[in-house]
Amino acid sequence: MASSTPSSHPSPEHIFQTLNAHQQTAALKAAIELDVFTAIDEGNHRAEDIANFVNAAHRGVRILCDYLTIMGFLGKDEGKYSLSPDAALFLSKRSPAYMGTIVGFMANEAHHQNLARLTEAVRRGGTASDKGDNLAPNDELWVSFARSMAPLMVPPAMFIAQLVRAQDAQPIRVLDIAAGHGTFGITIAKQNPKATITAVDWPAVLEVAKENAIHAGVADRYTAHAGSAFEANFGDGYDLVLLTNIFHHFDKETCVQLMKRVHAALQPEGKAVTLEFVPNEDRVTPATAASFSLQMLIGTNAGDAYTFAEYREMFRQAGFAKNTIHPIPAMPEQVIVSEKSH
Amino acid sequence: MASSTPSSHPSPEHIFQTLNAHQQTAALKAAIELDVFTAIDEGNHRAEDIANFVNAAHRGVRILCDYLTIMGFLGKDEGKYSLSPDAALFLSKRSPAYMGTIVGFMANEAHHQNLARLTEAVRRGGTASDKGDNLAPNDELWVSFARSMAPLMVPPAMFIAQLVRAQDAQPIRVLDIAAGHGTFGITIAKQNPKATITAVDWPAVLEVAKENAIHAGVADRYTAHAGSAFEANFGDGYDLVLLTNIFHHFDKETCVQLMKRVHAALQPEGKAVTLEFVPNEDRVTPATAASFSLQMLIGTNAGDAYTFAEYREMFRQAGFAKNTIHPIPAMPEQVIVSEKSH
Repeated sequence: MASSTPSSHPSPEHIFQTLNAHQQTAALKAAIELDVFTAIDEGNHRAEDIANFVNAAHRGVRILCDYLTIMGFLGKDEGKYSLSPDAALFLSKRSPAYMGTIVGFMANEAHHQNLARLTEAVRRGGTASDKGDNLAPNDELWVSFARSMAPLMVPPAMFIAQLVRAQDAQPIRVLDIAAGHGTFGITIAKQNPKATITAVDWPAVLEVAKENAIHAGVADRYTAHAGSAFEANFGDGYDLVLLTNIFHHFDKETCVQLMKRVHAALQPEGKAVTLEFVPNEDRVTPATAASFSLQMLIGTNAGDAYTFAEYREMFRQAGFAKNTIHPIPAMPEQVIVSEKSH
Repeated sequence: MASSTPSSHPSPEHIFQTLNAHQQTAALKAAIELDVFTAIDEGNHRAEDIANFVNAAHRGVRILCDYLTIMGFLGKDEGKYSLSPDAALFLSKRSPAYMGTIVGFMANEAHHQNLARLTEAVRRGGTASDKGDNLAPNDELWVSFARSMAPLMVPPAMFIAQLVRAQDAQPIRVLDIAAGHGTFGITIAKQNPKATITAVDWPAVLEVAKENAIHAGVADRYTAHAGSAFEANFGDGYDLVLLTNIFHHFDKETCVQLMKRVHAALQPEGKAVTLEFVPNEDRVTPATAASFSLQMLIGTNAGDAYTFAEYREMFRQAGFAKNTIHPIPAMPEQVIVSEKSH
């Protein structure tokens, strides 16, 4: 976002661009589905060569690649396309950091259906989805999330593991609430051979987390605990509780209720670690974090992108005396660390 | 477009923003449908007052207005929203230049359906729409276009009227091909009381043009001629032929064929005036003109945003000796003037 700067004198161009912005989503989705970025990374630079590689028409690939160039994902020089640093790292299947799978969640038709009802959602003040609030137990959406979004979570998971000094290799018990793909707990377990992880989520989602734990070689220290974050018996005495991308779905009262359960599950020196989109007090900066609230308007009854002041107050009500916020380099989310004792 | 500049070190943020870009389209559409901009222009500046005015929920309006602020259509200061210059001029119904109607064409569900099939369109090299190429006779799309898009055409129509010196009030005969809403011919007729206009389009579309001619008080000098641009008998001896937003739908051969018919319809000193999205030779700048080709990939079998060199060559083949290009201040399209004689 923070898209094109409006020009100094009034012009319909910004309006025109904005009403066409859905083309950007569709173009990046199509390029990922066709594997255009991998094609270029494999040494195909001209539209006709890329078209041959991805088995598509020359006209289609030429127009798509020009559009990707306009968006900044490709360079173009004398008719030859090249990958931007972002595209090379995240969108070519030759890269270990490939995250093209995220289109499966972010640009799926269910999202479009919710977006198409935004006017009605604004009228109601909450989702106008046929299916209602997307927090229903076992919602297929969360399996799709777990299968698609893990690669986007690698940088924040690495950041959190470093923040909690996982490499110090102290024995720690970690509770990962609404674990999803499991990336956050698994990353700590990989770095710390004495860490044990308990992951809580809906049963179908936990299947994905368990697969990922096996793949990461930490399955022997990984316990999947099916149930709701609001009802499951977490146990107690945890050193660390992970709360990644969960609070934004709820109203404040519900967030406090969840954080009280977290408080009870932690040992006295324990910490809760929250990953969230946290806008500034003005709620309009930084752009990506602030705009996340629209996603919550579309999909939930009462979720939001809360400010740090709001989180601090909610967590204080739940008994956490000290809360600190930590930006993640080059990522839109931030980490809040909450300590029971001062 | 030319959306957020990719950061200097790789980050998934630009990918994340792009996959969410369809939210921008939905948010502006919702704001126009709810008439949020008029509400603010009427003196409602806080979310709760705007919500009351537009009969929507406080949470919904607050989140939507924050998002509109992030996009640059609103300002926000101490919880009070204000209109950007663009929004005040083009999106408040209190403004004579209001163009909110364009959402009816630009962000309708048919467009989304075509966009949702972009991957298939790239494979085929042309539209993957159920309805096929959108050039079928009498396509409802063009009635929707004529009813929705006229306000966006006012600045280019004024520019063209000035370019052809309509205010000199010489008697001129004008042929407006694929007239749509009729704005281009009607604007000349309003400025030049000795101008007569012949408008060609499908019958249902011409009804819109005729309504607009009556509304503008020029109906007595306005003739509607139903038919295809490729088959209708235009007559001849015209001083001016208007070709606004038509060539981009066709392949080059078809453009030449149309321009030959235009050549035959003009008197020896006559001029053809083309309004088009004309990218530079690199086909990736300027952003709005260059990205228009994606729209043609989605909706047509062979349309494109042609460069000036391509238009010059096509028009030369059709017999036009001299072709000059004229940028329109603060608008994404340009005007090409083609003269029969040197």
